[in-house]
Amino acid sequence: MKKFLNSPAGMQRESLAGFAQAWHDIVALDPDGRFVRRRQTRAGKVALISGGGSGHEPLHIGFVGRGMLDAACPGQVFSSPTPDQIVQAARAVDGGAGRLLIVKNYAGDRMNFALAAELCGPGTGVVLVDDDVALADSAREAGRRGVAGTLVVEKLLGAAAERGDGLESLRVLGPRAVAATRSMGVALTSCTVPTVGRPTFEIGAGEMEVGVGIHGEAGSRRVPLMSADRIARELVEAVLADLVPRAGRGEVLLLVNGCGATPLAELYLMFGAASRELQRHGCRVVRSLVGNFVTSLDMAGCSVTVTRLDGELAGLWDAPVQTAALRWGV
Amino acid sequence: MKKFLNSPAGMQRESLAGFAQAWHDIVALDPDGRFVRRRQTRAGKVALISGGGSGHEPLHIGFVGRGMLDAACPGQVFSSPTPDQIVQAARAVDGGAGRLLIVKNYAGDRMNFALAAELCGPGTGVVLVDDDVALADSAREAGRRGVAGTLVVEKLLGAAAERGDGLESLRVLGPRAVAATRSMGVALTSCTVPTVGRPTFEIGAGEMEVGVGIHGEAGSRRVPLMSADRIARELVEAVLADLVPRAGRGEVLLLVNGCGATPLAELYLMFGAASRELQRHGCRVVRSLVGNFVTSLDMAGCSVTVTRLDGELAGLWDAPVQTAALRWGV
Repeated sequence: MKKFLNSPAGMQRESLAGFAQAWHDIVALDPDGRFVRRRQTRAGKVALISGGGSGHEPLHIGFVGRGMLDAACPGQVFSSPTPDQIVQAARAVDGGAGRLLIVKNYAGDRMNFALAAELCGPGTGVVLVDDDVALADSAREAGRRGVAGTLVVEKLLGAAAERGDGLESLRVLGPRAVAATRSMGVALTSCTVPTVGRPTFEIGAGEMEVGVGIHGEAGSRRVPLMSADRIARELVEAVLADLVPRAGRGEVLLLVNGCGATPLAELYLMFGAASRELQRHGCRVVRSLVGNFVTSLDMAGCSVTVTRLDGELAGLWDAPVQTAALRWGV
Repeated sequence: MKKFLNSPAGMQRESLAGFAQAWHDIVALDPDGRFVRRRQTRAGKVALISGGGSGHEPLHIGFVGRGMLDAACPGQVFSSPTPDQIVQAARAVDGGAGRLLIVKNYAGDRMNFALAAELCGPGTGVVLVDDDVALADSAREAGRRGVAGTLVVEKLLGAAAERGDGLESLRVLGPRAVAATRSMGVALTSCTVPTVGRPTFEIGAGEMEVGVGIHGEAGSRRVPLMSADRIARELVEAVLADLVPRAGRGEVLLLVNGCGATPLAELYLMFGAASRELQRHGCRVVRSLVGNFVTSLDMAGCSVTVTRLDGELAGLWDAPVQTAALRWGV
């Protein structure tokens, strides 16, 4: 395992501290390290709280700030934060207008955020993100996993909360943003959890994992490494097959997301390839984002996320945002 | 070699096209792919043009935009752009107030930018960036290499040009910004040039290369992998030893830069470690940046850059910037 760290057990805590120090103009770290909060919260605004296992940076801590999240609760690497963490975070950023918890669809996260919502009491909503089409199977109890589309949902809801939308309105917008968003990814290498010290899965020099999960979970199949164009075609087709309506798709946001160890030069290339593929299917890419945003430690790989836009969603995407990882319009 | 690409030979061109498409609101790509230019240039402003080999993305193309570069000329991977490319770019963004070429100190880049400056004629300045202390030896004819500090120099000069500084003034500010900036990096893995197909250098599972160059050039020594704190200490001490004045260093900008395959979580941790080390040496980190900005394809590694700040330099750093890779205050 080759990583910049002092001790595997201390990595999450030290990384969080370094993050908070680098971006202290935007965020503040709870003294006990339980959550990262927006430096300046606003009274009368619904508080948006998210979180999940660490190892996906900049998700979620890098999306705390004006126009996006009010707080993020990082768990240990690939482990849910505790209900207590979430409740503390929600209390710290309460603006008196209710709170909305944004949760990626994993059993541990669902359970802990649901318990936290109960402890927070009335005026607490939960939005579940399940954008990964790799293992789409509505019959499975667990449902789809939440992956890179979480960024899009947090941006859209963050903008809506910032403009003054109330909790009930956000509770409607959340599922609408989730329904408009689908993702799928591929991995070229495994990731290595620091406290484990060896790769999560083995993969051959000429192989790739299609539909990989953001914790290195198995995808839908293991195949020989394909060209960028073929990968883009496979990902875009899988994503579009799951987005309704299938006809007249119109305008979309395209996010090409890196898994952590894939350099921007390759992601730019994948963006071009995915964009051509979308065009071939009658979609017009009117908003775009490319970079390492929802990562899996040191995994090499990328994912494609497509969000169907209407006028309102496009406006929410364009709204000012000032976080460590996303900044525009301010 | 595991990369997202269609053909090694086409990678640079396709990556550039994808980049320009993703950020078409900020940049425009020359139809022949010779340069990326700012979508909107301003008459009466000194034009800033940089460039160099590809493979360091987002440098330089990701720094084109308001408050930073007017144009960037990407060469093939790790190869200088041609004088013709540079001249075409300079003509395309000419605002009638002269032009300044920002050049990393490598033989090929120096030669081609010098020739381009001659072809551009009077009213053309050149600023040479040589911030790498790894092989510091003023007796060597080649001098220090230009590495991650290039980002800082481009930001400071870009802000000065944007506020209306003339060419003569920028010709003074350039060397001042360069003199205030020093960097050093370490690599945990090699990079792989697509057209070569195998790693540039071999490195053992438990080894790191101290003082590595941004093209995978050998550093000052090969040592067993150290802890993050020890790496930070070594890098900060080398950087500070080369910054004058050594006493009373005061306020600094700290940039912890990733080499391409190192995830943010590790860079955050390194930021904390480098920051503590600077503090121990009497420096106060008053500005910070952490991320993958000056990369070496798929190399895992990081570098530390320190810039001594005075009131003017801090103000130029804070000035609005709107590029693909750096955005704030706008």
